[in-house]
Amino acid sequence: MAILCRPSVSVPEHVITMEETLDLARTLHADHPQLPLALRLIENTGVRKRHIIQPIEETLKHPGLKERNDLYEAEAKARVPDVVRGALDDAGLRPADIDVIIYVSCTGFMMPSLTAWLINEMGFSSDTRQMPIAQLGCAAGGAAVNRAHDFCTAYPEANALIVACEFCSLCYQPTDLGVGSLLSNGLFGDGIAAAVVRGRGGTGITLERNGSYLIPKTEDWIAYDVRPTGFHFMLDKRVPTTMEPLAPALQELAALHGWDASDLDFYIIHAGGPRILDDLSKFLRVPPDAFRFSRATLTEYGNIASAVVLDALRRLFDEGGARDTARGLLAGFGPGITAEMSLGRWIRSDASSGLVEARA
Amino acid sequence: MAILCRPSVSVPEHVITMEETLDLARTLHADHPQLPLALRLIENTGVRKRHIIQPIEETLKHPGLKERNDLYEAEAKARVPDVVRGALDDAGLRPADIDVIIYVSCTGFMMPSLTAWLINEMGFSSDTRQMPIAQLGCAAGGAAVNRAHDFCTAYPEANALIVACEFCSLCYQPTDLGVGSLLSNGLFGDGIAAAVVRGRGGTGITLERNGSYLIPKTEDWIAYDVRPTGFHFMLDKRVPTTMEPLAPALQELAALHGWDASDLDFYIIHAGGPRILDDLSKFLRVPPDAFRFSRATLTEYGNIASAVVLDALRRLFDEGGARDTARGLLAGFGPGITAEMSLGRWIRSDASSGLVEARA
Repeated sequence: MAILCRPSVSVPEHVITMEETLDLARTLHADHPQLPLALRLIENTGVRKRHIIQPIEETLKHPGLKERNDLYEAEAKARVPDVVRGALDDAGLRPADIDVIIYVSCTGFMMPSLTAWLINEMGFSSDTRQMPIAQLGCAAGGAAVNRAHDFCTAYPEANALIVACEFCSLCYQPTDLGVGSLLSNGLFGDGIAAAVVRGRGGTGITLERNGSYLIPKTEDWIAYDVRPTGFHFMLDKRVPTTMEPLAPALQELAALHGWDASDLDFYIIHAGGPRILDDLSKFLRVPPDAFRFSRATLTEYGNIASAVVLDALRRLFDEGGARDTARGLLAGFGPGITAEMSLGRWIRSDASSGLVEARA
Repeated sequence: MAILCRPSVSVPEHVITMEETLDLARTLHADHPQLPLALRLIENTGVRKRHIIQPIEETLKHPGLKERNDLYEAEAKARVPDVVRGALDDAGLRPADIDVIIYVSCTGFMMPSLTAWLINEMGFSSDTRQMPIAQLGCAAGGAAVNRAHDFCTAYPEANALIVACEFCSLCYQPTDLGVGSLLSNGLFGDGIAAAVVRGRGGTGITLERNGSYLIPKTEDWIAYDVRPTGFHFMLDKRVPTTMEPLAPALQELAALHGWDASDLDFYIIHAGGPRILDDLSKFLRVPPDAFRFSRATLTEYGNIASAVVLDALRRLFDEGGARDTARGLLAGFGPGITAEMSLGRWIRSDASSGLVEARA
């Protein structure tokens, strides 16, 4: 019985507000023929502020792909260990208790993955499995939960550590001037999240079933163009319409489990943007308030890619969790267009609840 | 009981021989102070020929990162489906029977991964899981087998498709002039391999136990430097010495399973280079002939990265396989320094053996 424990989350110290974002767009793109549309789209995100790893003046420069990727590595090494320690503490485990590290990140590229460095630096066992995933984008948070679930299903005594490290500000491309790019520049933020999936014990979500769904023939709707300047994020304007075909996939997964996706107790949904949440709420026929954790992440941090679902889940824990056996759905969405979906129930371990409450 | 079925392998039509490689090195690097050393190292690889996706004249040009990555995508789309069909046929399965696609490749970068395109183009189900892994390098072939094994352990009715697509020639960097780079230019080749891990039935290796091992503090021995020209392969000269610390890890895994790693019936080992095979044979105390499948891959194709172990395994099948219940070891090595190891027994399914023999 795999249990997804409380995520630990950290956002960087540099902050950019919605007002600052709009001012910047007005200044940088004063002559842009679609500036009014871009400003409206940014305002509609509802993102009040975002956190970024560098001051905004530095963020707006593009020093070159090598410099950016080196910065990705340096910042990841500086910031990830504390978040991992938080996740381990919340799960009541030590590094030596972890059997697999699933590291998801689409905003920098390292080979070997940060997993090797983490194992060396943080006292994980040399036989820890490494599962680095770079190509599932925002869906990777859900995918990491699901692959951890699979692993603990195969090895019921095992524990998995999930790490989502996203520095979206390092994918800012000053020469990308399409409306989708201007919107992205006002939507994405930086953040790191980590969580443990325990094979046994712990407080959180017992993962009961997971599934994946690819919307046919949408593989070019969200994509990276790989250029000498790095990853260029290509966002098709049809992406906000994807909840109509994805809602039935969520419903089908729930039905397989004997559940009704429209009538669950909690929802942890990827906050790709406000329309994603509005539409899914409409197509699943759940009240908007059901997605409050995701909305809070979007409002306070922006879209932090694969880390969104873990931050939204952290907010459920911080609210005090759910009643015992409450049923919930976790879903990440990203390129493919892929949905990574998970169904589970809230469980409170008497042994660990004191620890969780002390931290909440 | 997860069974690793016969891999399907394809190498491109353009061929470069050892003599051509040496001639090229003499021409391109006539003034290089360490040319004699580089030539000796290349000769020592024993790589008689390699297959590459473009004629050598094109391979030697660097048209830019975008052009190269676009070529990666185009060539992968042109070449992978046939190999996948071969693997499915050998396993007696259709695309709809596959539950997860594990796609490993470190020589190009796509987001979404090729998995999304394969699902759309080849009739895989929309709920097929996607597990793209780019950051385990040459160890990813072993990792793919192991993650497929884990998946089929969690879901015993499931089937996993593994695809390793490596166009190492697209990582040729004309400006990299260290001896390690010159050696790499004479060592790596292009190749595609695919294999199915069936949850039930089939002829091949029943996967019984897997493990991973990271040699402490070696994470910078094999690494990519990410630059505007793409991935630059950094190879530390200590890499050929890694079999001394890895042999005990293989022995320990075998011992956990009640086996002696020095006394198995077959070995499928990553052929990183000749020294890897020579040393491992020495430290495991097995006769050199035990690694004949890996040596044949190295001699005929060069080091085809994550596809090596699958091609070496294909050669075991082509030799007629092993006697029933014969015990074997499969191991991939790559950046980390990471070993991905697997133990299994040969099994022949009466139902499928005719199919396998007809193709062998």
